[in-house]
Amino acid sequence: MRSGDRLALARLITHAENRTSALPAIMRAVHPHGSGAYVVGITGPPGAGKSTIVDRLTALLRAESATVGIVAVDPSSPFTGGAVLGDRIRMQAHALDSGVFIRSMASRGALGGLARATGDVVKLLAAAGFAWVLVETVGVGQTELDVMKLADTTVVVFVPGSGDAVQTMKAGLMEAADVFVVNKADRSGAPGLMAELKFAAHLQYTGPTARRDVDWETPVLATQADSDAGTADLLDTIRRHRELLEASGALEARRAARRRAELRALLAEELTGSLERRLAAADLGRTVEDVADGTIDLYTAAEAIRPMLSLGPS
Amino acid sequence: MRSGDRLALARLITHAENRTSALPAIMRAVHPHGSGAYVVGITGPPGAGKSTIVDRLTALLRAESATVGIVAVDPSSPFTGGAVLGDRIRMQAHALDSGVFIRSMASRGALGGLARATGDVVKLLAAAGFAWVLVETVGVGQTELDVMKLADTTVVVFVPGSGDAVQTMKAGLMEAADVFVVNKADRSGAPGLMAELKFAAHLQYTGPTARRDVDWETPVLATQADSDAGTADLLDTIRRHRELLEASGALEARRAARRRAELRALLAEELTGSLERRLAAADLGRTVEDVADGTIDLYTAAEAIRPMLSLGPS
Repeated sequence: MRSGDRLALARLITHAENRTSALPAIMRAVHPHGSGAYVVGITGPPGAGKSTIVDRLTALLRAESATVGIVAVDPSSPFTGGAVLGDRIRMQAHALDSGVFIRSMASRGALGGLARATGDVVKLLAAAGFAWVLVETVGVGQTELDVMKLADTTVVVFVPGSGDAVQTMKAGLMEAADVFVVNKADRSGAPGLMAELKFAAHLQYTGPTARRDVDWETPVLATQADSDAGTADLLDTIRRHRELLEASGALEARRAARRRAELRALLAEELTGSLERRLAAADLGRTVEDVADGTIDLYTAAEAIRPMLSLGPS
Repeated sequence: MRSGDRLALARLITHAENRTSALPAIMRAVHPHGSGAYVVGITGPPGAGKSTIVDRLTALLRAESATVGIVAVDPSSPFTGGAVLGDRIRMQAHALDSGVFIRSMASRGALGGLARATGDVVKLLAAAGFAWVLVETVGVGQTELDVMKLADTTVVVFVPGSGDAVQTMKAGLMEAADVFVVNKADRSGAPGLMAELKFAAHLQYTGPTARRDVDWETPVLATQADSDAGTADLLDTIRRHRELLEASGALEARRAARRRAELRALLAEELTGSLERRLAAADLGRTVEDVADGTIDLYTAAEAIRPMLSLGPS
């Protein structure tokens, strides 16, 4: 994979997607090579034009000979499957370019699992030498947020006419956004939407949940990605954000925090699995059934089970 | 509280909201009285008219002298705070009726925590003798889904003109919905939205994620809650769903599954807390920092830490 074999890369990605037993050894082997890429997340509601924006950013980066890995994370809802497939077909303009690698990730139903698999795929793309990794989520809900946590810069794309953008924004996405884009900015609702987003960005910037490690108020950009209008400005803005993060040391600090969170999440997931097995065992299973049939309450059961679940060395 | 003292009920709810140390004893004491209420969840995007629907259902139930507890779960986003407050003011038509108890739950930021607190409040209202508990969520995202898991019947409210309803529906909400309502059904987009939802409901009914414990295809109802049109039909539909669940034994089986899940979630939350403390300790903290600064990879660290975290008896 490190020598540019795309088939090898695709095979390793499949290990990450399927969480095979070989994955820990794979990730250990690529780890020394995995920190070079800059990761940009692109999210927003269905139909906002995210894939077109990813396509334009890719073209701009390729014009400078920078290599680009693209991960498109599909939503778990089966109803948008067709749209996603269409997006991928549009991206085939880059399909024959050896400086671009495109992979769609399907949801496995396990939300945390999808974000973790995406994290491993991003690391594989970085280790394969791609300078930029663009992560696009078409999902709605928690997956989107978890996937966006993988990004160094998060771009949230809106489109005029999709209802009250700020009110329908998922909780937490406001805090995660580094750049707002109003795409299809020639539509009539665009100025109002931009004003609304600017107000929300300013509230966020001056509010209690703002990140204070860099001085950055989320800018609101207008694009018409179909005709490439505004996309160069978007790439410039992403670069400005990157430079600020790098110069201030915030990039390294945020990545360190992200790695800590990944480890905690992995261990917590394993522990939850152990808990399921312990609760299924005869000694605790009886108490679980007493709760299920209403014989005892939740807290009484938790008190009875708690001493049996000490988290100590084996 | 059991003798109808509303102030006592309000105080106990505050214990549930604030997760005080008295809560386990409180929930143990009310447990024998807590299974009589039927719980209806009402969710949907902001502005769909959920509160008006809750208000009309309450009026219909009160006309039959049934008592109604209402829990309105506020979104975690600060941007919709105003709307929620407005909704509560509108509900004051019932504020002087001793057969109705209304409580707003504010998000504490901890999403799982809010759903758990709401679950305890529902149990307190049931123990206080309310025959029906209506849980309204104005939130978007995971909280909404977690809160809807508390309901015996889940109603999802849509409004024409709020974009592609099915595409923007949170993953998991489709599976959780028992009744779809298109409110403000006099608007021009209503027939199209109803057709879209009927199609989605039918796909769900015939698809792999359908619940097979009862034969129920999610109906799509039209309401104009402002003028009370369709709300009696909605209550009838909720009752038909309830009767089906009760007659088939699915209600008791679902409630048992819910109680098992509540216990697992409570214990998993406690375990995750223990994990955080263990990882902060000197012996494991070193490995966490090796991951944070990139010295070792995630899986190598997990392998090193795993043996230190056996889930055994204390």
